[in-house]
Amino acid sequence: MSVTAARGFTAAGIAAGIKHNGDRDLALVVNDGPRHAAAGVFTSNRVQAAPVQWSRQVLADGEIRAVVLNSGGANACTGPQGFADTRATAERAAERLGASAADVAVCSTGLIGVPLPMDRILAGVERAVTRLSESGGEDAALAVMTTDTVHKTAAVTRGAWTVGGMAKGAGMLAPGLATMLVVLTTDADLNGAALDRALREATRVTFDRVDSDGCMSTNDTVLLLSSGASRVVPEHEEFADAVRTVCADLARQLIGDAEGASKEIRIEVVGAASEDDAVEVGRSVARNSLLKCAVHGEDPNWGRVLSAIGTTGAAFEPDRLNVAINGVQVCRNGSVGEDRALVDMTGREVRITVDLAAGTDSAVIWTNDLTADYVHENSEYAS
Amino acid sequence: MSVTAARGFTAAGIAAGIKHNGDRDLALVVNDGPRHAAAGVFTSNRVQAAPVQWSRQVLADGEIRAVVLNSGGANACTGPQGFADTRATAERAAERLGASAADVAVCSTGLIGVPLPMDRILAGVERAVTRLSESGGEDAALAVMTTDTVHKTAAVTRGAWTVGGMAKGAGMLAPGLATMLVVLTTDADLNGAALDRALREATRVTFDRVDSDGCMSTNDTVLLLSSGASRVVPEHEEFADAVRTVCADLARQLIGDAEGASKEIRIEVVGAASEDDAVEVGRSVARNSLLKCAVHGEDPNWGRVLSAIGTTGAAFEPDRLNVAINGVQVCRNGSVGEDRALVDMTGREVRITVDLAAGTDSAVIWTNDLTADYVHENSEYAS
Repeated sequence: MSVTAARGFTAAGIAAGIKHNGDRDLALVVNDGPRHAAAGVFTSNRVQAAPVQWSRQVLADGEIRAVVLNSGGANACTGPQGFADTRATAERAAERLGASAADVAVCSTGLIGVPLPMDRILAGVERAVTRLSESGGEDAALAVMTTDTVHKTAAVTRGAWTVGGMAKGAGMLAPGLATMLVVLTTDADLNGAALDRALREATRVTFDRVDSDGCMSTNDTVLLLSSGASRVVPEHEEFADAVRTVCADLARQLIGDAEGASKEIRIEVVGAASEDDAVEVGRSVARNSLLKCAVHGEDPNWGRVLSAIGTTGAAFEPDRLNVAINGVQVCRNGSVGEDRALVDMTGREVRITVDLAAGTDSAVIWTNDLTADYVHENSEYAS
Repeated sequence: MSVTAARGFTAAGIAAGIKHNGDRDLALVVNDGPRHAAAGVFTSNRVQAAPVQWSRQVLADGEIRAVVLNSGGANACTGPQGFADTRATAERAAERLGASAADVAVCSTGLIGVPLPMDRILAGVERAVTRLSESGGEDAALAVMTTDTVHKTAAVTRGAWTVGGMAKGAGMLAPGLATMLVVLTTDADLNGAALDRALREATRVTFDRVDSDGCMSTNDTVLLLSSGASRVVPEHEEFADAVRTVCADLARQLIGDAEGASKEIRIEVVGAASEDDAVEVGRSVARNSLLKCAVHGEDPNWGRVLSAIGTTGAAFEPDRLNVAINGVQVCRNGSVGEDRALVDMTGREVRITVDLAAGTDSAVIWTNDLTADYVHENSEYAS
């Protein structure tokens, strides 16, 4: 059920003392081969943390031997020293693993603009190497948590091969990834290019469509590593489907654990002239603070859905728009539909369906409600 | 100090029974001439309320005799009946004023998707006509309030002529105007084209740069009416400056009274390669929920400023960005600057200065912090 579900991988998660409360804060995932293929997707934020810059370089040749991950500090906006710290972390892991630093990816998460405590990080890397095990996936998943309340893992097995993974992320969830670190592993026997294709197809319709609070992180990283240990080479479609399934599972877990949220909101846009239109409309609705407050208050305020749709460039006629909330068609042809009193919003999941009546394309975007708890949690994060 | 500060205007504000609590909810502003020139700017939301559709048509010839405004209902997403209701409102006012309905603008504000109580509106229009007076500006300003806690008026006099106005707006404050209704009046002797030019120049750098919660209304309307009663024709620059001054004053009042806010945040972007870049960056920072929470918590979390800048397409290099909060240079060259502990954020106004180090253009965007009170107020708006 984690990064060690697939054969050929070991992992560890330890408390290196980066977090002041003594929780686990350093994870290591190692690919023992025989293959060391890898692919990655990174934040599209132009302000990128040092570990993102480093890991992009490491991935250029399509191979990774190991990934070091730390919580307790993002190592973003830390200047040249931050990059040197990331490199030193990779070098220390490589040295202890008998690998090249150019094959060790690094991921960091936590507060931006604070240098990492490198003595603790380096000692932690050494200790993590001694703790590596084929059952270490859960410990690794625990060690990447920040404001997460639960650790997140998933896996699917298809015949002889498996795709497994772990994720962390609870705030700053937005497009172009979602303040998350995700490591996926597989023992299917595929090269870097095949992994890359499957990973991009999967993230496009899963992590990229999670938009909890409209904020985009400097550190988002999703890695997919193949050990090839199953010796089986799956068809692209079959493999891509497995990767998508694991990504969708993890993405749903991220939304379910978003900071301070009390509702998960599934926004399905149908009848769109293109998939891009559907995504644009879904994202605009997902980012409307007034709507997110209304959902928190269990108020089926469809006017706020329409005002959000109206800010987009998607193809639609205002007097043909339809909106359903939890199955009740509260807006028909851009005007008053069924009685809003019929809508039951007491459950944790709220489904909003927007019909643009302009075509046949569709998309689903997931977001959360906006709550006083979100405000409290994020007013006090740094202090 | 209001819409009746300029000569040639009368106004009234009464309780027509649209609001259930007995507060004033219907305003009337009448231009007694000799000139009846007018210009208007409307929401850029593609979902537009019936009164916006009506008033656009009324303005097409550059003349308005009167404006009827109601709070207690937006008359948006109300279908053909909503448009008929707006027209009936204009017709009743025209009939009692001895004017043409085609010269009566209508503005509505309140909940979307609820038909107006037309019996009360029409009776209210009749009563408002009997209450018109040269000192009715304050009453009119009181009658357009929704969740506003104070009424908003402003005026400047330049020699023989005056520009005055009123505004309402407290939530759904965003670009392309800000859930606001604004009526400006002047006795300067100018035609519709001259008013239009001055109004567009003014709104572009005032109301358009108020972005309290990123949401865009279906009803935003800003009207500027000239009675010509001063018989003075000012130079364009002088008149435009007066209109801009009144708009800036009202915009600042809107931000100061935004729903649930505890801070006003002035985001100044300097060193931009273009004004558009400066506005794009300012707006991105203004809409970052995590930063808005941090400001609420008086936490100088400049990492969230950088991550917001990084989502834009503006010209900049990440390692040349500088950010100051209340005068303390907390981020220098994209990395750690002065000690964040030096920043005092206890005051109500917080100044964030972003230097893109990419040119000489600049812009100022105003926003608010994100608070639990905002969530509470907007969770319960419809109920």
